[in-house]
Amino acid sequence: MNNRLNEDFFLTTETGKRLYHTYAENIPIVDYHCHLQPKEMYENEEFEDLGEMWLKGDHYKWRVMRTFGIEERLITGDASYHEKYLAFAAILPKLIGNPIYIWCALELKRYFGIDEPVTAANAEDIYQRTLKLIRERHMTRQYCMEVSNVRLVSTTEDPIDTLEYHKKMAADPNLKVKVISAFRPDLAMFLEEDDFADYMGKLAAAAEMKIDSFAAMCEALEKRLQYFASMGTTVSDDGIPYFKWENYTDDEIETIWKKAVANEPVTQLEADKYRSAFLYKMGGIYHRNGFIMQLHIGTYLNANTKGVREVGKSCGFDCIDDASPVISVGELLNRLTEDGTLPNTIIYPLDGTKIEAWAVLAAGFCDGLTRGKVQLGAPWWFNDQAFGIARQFESCANLYPVALSVGMLTDSRSFISYPRHEVYRRILCDYFGKLVERGEYFHSDEELGEIIKDVCIRNVCDFFGFKVAY
Amino acid sequence: MNNRLNEDFFLTTETGKRLYHTYAENIPIVDYHCHLQPKEMYENEEFEDLGEMWLKGDHYKWRVMRTFGIEERLITGDASYHEKYLAFAAILPKLIGNPIYIWCALELKRYFGIDEPVTAANAEDIYQRTLKLIRERHMTRQYCMEVSNVRLVSTTEDPIDTLEYHKKMAADPNLKVKVISAFRPDLAMFLEEDDFADYMGKLAAAAEMKIDSFAAMCEALEKRLQYFASMGTTVSDDGIPYFKWENYTDDEIETIWKKAVANEPVTQLEADKYRSAFLYKMGGIYHRNGFIMQLHIGTYLNANTKGVREVGKSCGFDCIDDASPVISVGELLNRLTEDGTLPNTIIYPLDGTKIEAWAVLAAGFCDGLTRGKVQLGAPWWFNDQAFGIARQFESCANLYPVALSVGMLTDSRSFISYPRHEVYRRILCDYFGKLVERGEYFHSDEELGEIIKDVCIRNVCDFFGFKVAY
Amino acid sequence: MNNRLNEDFFLTTETGKRLYHTYAENIPIVDYHCHLQPKEMYENEEFEDLGEMWLKGDHYKWRVMRTFGIEERLITGDASYHEKYLAFAAILPKLIGNPIYIWCALELKRYFGIDEPVTAANAEDIYQRTLKLIRERHMTRQYCMEVSNVRLVSTTEDPIDTLEYHKKMAADPNLKVKVISAFRPDLAMFLEEDDFADYMGKLAAAAEMKIDSFAAMCEALEKRLQYFASMGTTVSDDGIPYFKWENYTDDEIETIWKKAVANEPVTQLEADKYRSAFLYKMGGIYHRNGFIMQLHIGTYLNANTKGVREVGKSCGFDCIDDASPVISVGELLNRLTEDGTLPNTIIYPLDGTKIEAWAVLAAGFCDGLTRGKVQLGAPWWFNDQAFGIARQFESCANLYPVALSVGMLTDSRSFISYPRHEVYRRILCDYFGKLVERGEYFHSDEELGEIIKDVCIRNVCDFFGFKVAY
Repeated sequence: MNNRLNEDFFLTTETGKRLYHTYAENIPIVDYHCHLQPKEMYENEEFEDLGEMWLKGDHYKWRVMRTFGIEERLITGDASYHEKYLAFAAILPKLIGNPIYIWCALELKRYFGIDEPVTAANAEDIYQRTLKLIRERHMTRQYCMEVSNVRLVSTTEDPIDTLEYHKKMAADPNLKVKVISAFRPDLAMFLEEDDFADYMGKLAAAAEMKIDSFAAMCEALEKRLQYFASMGTTVSDDGIPYFKWENYTDDEIETIWKKAVANEPVTQLEADKYRSAFLYKMGGIYHRNGFIMQLHIGTYLNANTKGVREVGKSCGFDCIDDASPVISVGELLNRLTEDGTLPNTIIYPLDGTKIEAWAVLAAGFCDGLTRGKVQLGAPWWFNDQAFGIARQFESCANLYPVALSVGMLTDSRSFISYPRHEVYRRILCDYFGKLVERGEYFHSDEELGEIIKDVCIRNVCDFFGFKVAY
Repeated sequence: MNNRLNEDFFLTTETGKRLYHTYAENIPIVDYHCHLQPKEMYENEEFEDLGEMWLKGDHYKWRVMRTFGIEERLITGDASYHEKYLAFAAILPKLIGNPIYIWCALELKRYFGIDEPVTAANAEDIYQRTLKLIRERHMTRQYCMEVSNVRLVSTTEDPIDTLEYHKKMAADPNLKVKVISAFRPDLAMFLEEDDFADYMGKLAAAAEMKIDSFAAMCEALEKRLQYFASMGTTVSDDGIPYFKWENYTDDEIETIWKKAVANEPVTQLEADKYRSAFLYKMGGIYHRNGFIMQLHIGTYLNANTKGVREVGKSCGFDCIDDASPVISVGELLNRLTEDGTLPNTIIYPLDGTKIEAWAVLAAGFCDGLTRGKVQLGAPWWFNDQAFGIARQFESCANLYPVALSVGMLTDSRSFISYPRHEVYRRILCDYFGKLVERGEYFHSDEELGEIIKDVCIRNVCDFFGFKVAY
Repeated sequence: MNNRLNEDFFLTTETGKRLYHTYAENIPIVDYHCHLQPKEMYENEEFEDLGEMWLKGDHYKWRVMRTFGIEERLITGDASYHEKYLAFAAILPKLIGNPIYIWCALELKRYFGIDEPVTAANAEDIYQRTLKLIRERHMTRQYCMEVSNVRLVSTTEDPIDTLEYHKKMAADPNLKVKVISAFRPDLAMFLEEDDFADYMGKLAAAAEMKIDSFAAMCEALEKRLQYFASMGTTVSDDGIPYFKWENYTDDEIETIWKKAVANEPVTQLEADKYRSAFLYKMGGIYHRNGFIMQLHIGTYLNANTKGVREVGKSCGFDCIDDASPVISVGELLNRLTEDGTLPNTIIYPLDGTKIEAWAVLAAGFCDGLTRGKVQLGAPWWFNDQAFGIARQFESCANLYPVALSVGMLTDSRSFISYPRHEVYRRILCDYFGKLVERGEYFHSDEELGEIIKDVCIRNVCDFFGFKVAY
C-alpha cells in the first residue's frame, strides 16, 4: 500500500488491466441522461472552490453527512462552502466501500492531479491547492466537461420548458459539447399532487391550446414533444414511483382526469388506472415520434416528509420501493407490442436486487428487428457504484447480452461526475478479465475490444441516433 | 490466453481442480427432469447438422437472437438450419457471460472434439467439419446420450399421455438409457384456460371413467398416475405461475370446478382457492403413491402475447414473476404435514434472487425421518448457469446442507445438453475448493469426495428410488 | 491442506490478515442482544458435556439434524446428550458451507484448544477429551463468557418479568460480566393470540394498575419500561412477523383492543391498524425514556404447526417472510420523525436479500444530530454467517457507512457462541483488505484500525450509553 490512488484500481486481473488500458480508457463520453442545469452550463462560471464542486446539489453526499450526525447548517445550510468542505473532508476517510470515496478520489486526480487521500491533516492544504488551480486554469463548468472528453450530454426537462438555454448553447460556436434535453412529462402523471390542475394551465399555455380532457392533455404533450424533437431530442424519461397495471376504459380515464383537475381526491385504484393509461398513451406518442422511452421504476419518494419540508425535495430523503411488480410493466410493454407501437425502451429498476426479473422481461419484448429493442439501463441511483455495476453484469449477462447495452450515464447534477464513466468501464473490463481468466470466454482480445467499444459509445450512438465523432 | 477451451475452466483453485478431476468428472449422469420428446428419442434419427442440434426447439438461443435484432425467419422461421446456424454463429462471440456461450463451447468439445472459438471467419468451416463427423459417426439422439454417459432420463408428460414411446423404449434391448416420465397434471390446474372443459373430456377418456366433479377429476388423475407408476415413474411435476394460498371448503371447490367446466369466468379468488385445493389434493395423491412432488414456482408465462400468437408458447416469451409469496407454498406444505401426507418434495423457485427464503422454508418441513425430505431443486431455467448455480451454493449452504441435494438436471429439449451437468459439477467443486482454501472447511478430500458423489448421483438415486449402476 | 483449523481462515488477503491480527482480534466483546437465560447464567452450573454445550436449546443445529432425517429423539427427545452429540457429530463433516461447521470448529478451538475436524473416527475421543477438560477446569456458563472476554450482555425479557436474576447478578461481586435486559413487549402486540386477554391481566399485576384500555396498556408498559431502565436497560426490542402500515384513529384502536381482550376475532385490517398504533406509541415511549428501538422485521413464525405442537415454539419451525414492505416501516419512522419522537433505531430485516432497500431507508431518517441515528443491525438469524455478513458489508457500504455500525451480537441461547463475534470481525477485515488490495481504499492502516475499533466496540458503547472498559 503506498497510500496513493493506483491507476489499476478495480482491475484485479492482467486481462482486465490490458482490456481497460488498451480499449476502454480513451473512448469519449456520451452522457445520455443527467440533471445538469442548462443555465449553469451556458453561463459557465468558474467554480468558487472545491466545496462548491463537491457539495452543491449533491444529495448523495448530504445523505451520508447526515448519517454521521453532522448538523444541517454544514450540509445544506448557510455555512460557507469552505466550512462545508471541511465538515465533509473529516468523514471522507470513514467512507470505505462507499462510491463517494472513489468519486472524490477520482475527481481530485482527474481534475487536479492529486492522488493522495484527504485526511484531517491535509484537508485545508488540499482545499488551498485546488483553489489555486481553479483560479489559474479558470476551471469553469464547460472546462470540466472538456477535460473529461465529453461529446454529448442530455439534460432532462419538463414539457413546458422553453429550452431557452439549449437554444443558446446550440448557437454558441465555442461550446464543444452537444447538449440536448430528455422530455420528462412526470407532472402530468402525478394526478394526486396538489399542483396538478395548476400544471395543466401551464401546459396549455406552453402548447398554445386548450386542455379540457385527458385526450387534449396528451395532444398538448405531443406538441411539446415535437418542439423538443425540433431541438434534437430523441429521448423521453418517465419516473415511476410504484406502478400497478390496472385495466381501464377511456371514459374512466376522462372522469378520473376531471376529478384530478377539480382537485377532488382520487383513489389508489383510480391513480393506478390513470398511470396505466398515461404510460400506454405516452408509449404510443414516443413510438410515433421515434423517441426512446426511458422508464425509471420503483422510487419511494419523500419518505421523510419532515426532511423534505425543511430541506427540500431531492435532497436525500428518498428511498427505494421494494414492491413494484415486474408484471405491471410487462403488461404495459405487452399492450404496446400488441399495437405495434412499442418504442425502443430502456428500463431502470431502482430495486437493484430484482434486476434479473427485469432483464428477463426486457429480453421477452425484443422483436427481432431492432438491436437491443428493450433493454436495461445502467445501474440507477443507489445502484450506481462498483457493487451495483458489477452485480448487473454478473447477474444479467446470463439473461441479456451485455454487448447490447447502451452503457453508462451519470444521472448527475455535477459537472465533475464524469469519472463515473471511468468506474463503469473499469468494472466492465474487470468483469471481462475475470471471465477470460476463469476460461469462460476464449475469443480474442480484439473481439472483446469491439464489445467494449459497443458498450462504451457505439451502441448509445446507434440506439439514440446521436451523431458524434468517436 | 491461448484461445482454446481450457479443461480447467471455472476451476479457480488447485483444490477445486483436484476435486473435480478426481471425484466429479467421470460420474455417470441421471437426468431426472427434462423435456426430451420420447418419439424423437425412440426414432433416433441422425442429426441433420449442427444447426439442427443447436437451434431446433432451443428457446434460450431464440431469445438471445431476438435481442440482437435478428429476423424471425432465421430464428424459428423457414430458413434452413444452415442459414440459422450462420446467423447464430455471428453473435456467438458477443455472448460473453451468457451460458449459451459455454454450452456451445462444451457441445463442440464433447461431441466433436473442437475446442476453438466459433468466429465469423471459421463458422462455415466448423459447420462442415461437424457435418462430416455427424455423417461418419452416425450421430443420432441416442448416440449423444451414450457419449455423455447418461444412465437415466425422466421426460415429463401429461396424465392423458399413453406413454406409447416409453413402452417401446422399455422393450428395446438396444437402448442403453433408462427412460421414465414425470407425471405433470398442469392442465387440470389451469381452470381459467379455454380448453379446460375439453381437457376434462380427454382425461375422462384416458382414465376410462366419468368426470362430473372435482373429486372425480382427482380420482381420474390418480388412476393415470398409477398407470405412470406402472411404467416406472416415481415423480410428479407441477408448474405454478403464481400461487396464493386461499382457504376453501370442498363445496366451494366443486362449485368453482363446475363453473370452469361450463366455461363461465372464474374470479382471481376462485382461481386461488381452486389451485390451493388442487395442489393439496395432488400432494396427498403423490404421498399415497410414493411419488416425489416437484413444484416449479413463479413463472410469468406468455408475457408477450403477440410473440406467443405469432411464434408459439415456450418459444422465448416467458418471464419471471417476482411476487409469488413463500408463505403460500408454506401453507400448502403445512396442511399436508398436519395430515401426515406430505410427499418428498423438491421446490424450484424461478425468482432466483429469493432462493434463500425458499431454502429456509424447505428446512422447516424436514421431518427427521427422510434425508432431505423437502429440498430445493437445481437452479431452474433462467438460473441454470454458472452464476445461478454458484449463487445457490453460496447463499443456501448456510441454510440447507448442500450435501443433501439431489443435484443437477437439464430441464432441456436438447439431446446434447448434458454438458450442463459438467458445468454444475465444476461450479460445485470450485465452490468447495474456495471454502477449503479460505480455511472454512478442513476435513479431508475423501470426505468431500463422498459429498460430491452424493450430490452428483447417490442422492438422486436414493431419493427417487432409481436403480442405476454407478 | 493440513486438516487443521487455520488461524487465518476467512482472511484472503495480506491486508486483511494484518488488519485482523493487529486491530480486531483482541477487542473485548459487548453482546448487546442475546437470549441467554438469566437464571442459568446466575446459577452458573458446570456443563454436563459437549453434547449439552452444543445441543441444548440450539434450534439451528436441530433444524439441520432434521434435514438429514435424524429422528427427533436424538434431537430434542429423551436421548442422552452423549447420544445426541454422536448423532450430530456424524453429520458435522457434511456441513460444508454451513455456519454450524465453523461455529463448532471455533468452539472446540477457543474453549478446548482442539483444532482437528470431528469425524466418525474421533467423535468419541473428542467427546471424552472435552469432558475431561470441562471437569478439570470447572467449565461453567460464566467461565465461558470470561474466557471469551465478554464485558456486557443484554438478554431480552418480557415487560412483566421481575428481573429477579438480573438483580441478583448486579449484586454479585464475583460476576465479571455486566448483564442488562432488553425490554420486549411483543405479547402486547400480538392481539390475535388466544392468551392476549390473559397477558393483559399479568401486565396489570406487574404494573400494579388497572388496564381497561389501549391507552392504559401503554401506560402500564411505560411503567414497566421505567423499571427496566432502573436496572440499567437502555434498549427495547420488537419482533414483527409482517407489518403493513394502516392509518387509524385512536377510537378505532380502543375498539379493536376491546375486541381482542374480549377474545373476539379481529380482521387482518384491524390487526394491521393495531400494530401500526402499537409501534408508533411504543416509539414515542422509547424516545421519551432515552431507549434504543430495535425492530426485528419479517419473520414467518411457526410455519410448520405440527412441528411446533409436537416439539415447541422456537425449535426450528420458523421461516422467512418475503413480503413485508419497506414502505410500512418507513411510514412508522416518518410519523415519529414528524413528531420529533423518533428514538435511535436499529432495523434487522430477516429477508437478507432485501437488505439494501432497508439500508437506504435507514439513511433517509438520519437527522444530522445523532451519529448513525437509524441504522441496520448485524445480519440476523438466517443471515448470521459469513455469507450474510459479507453480503451486508458489500451491498450496504455503498448505501450506509459501515463505520457507523454498532457491530455484532450473538442473538444466541448459547454461552459458547462468542466466536460469532470473531467470525464477524474476520469478515470485516477481509472485506476491508479486499477493498485496499483492489485500490478502492488508500488511506492508512491506522485509519482502518480506528474504523475497526468503532465497529467492534466504540460505536455500540456510545450508541447505547454502555459504560464498559475497552
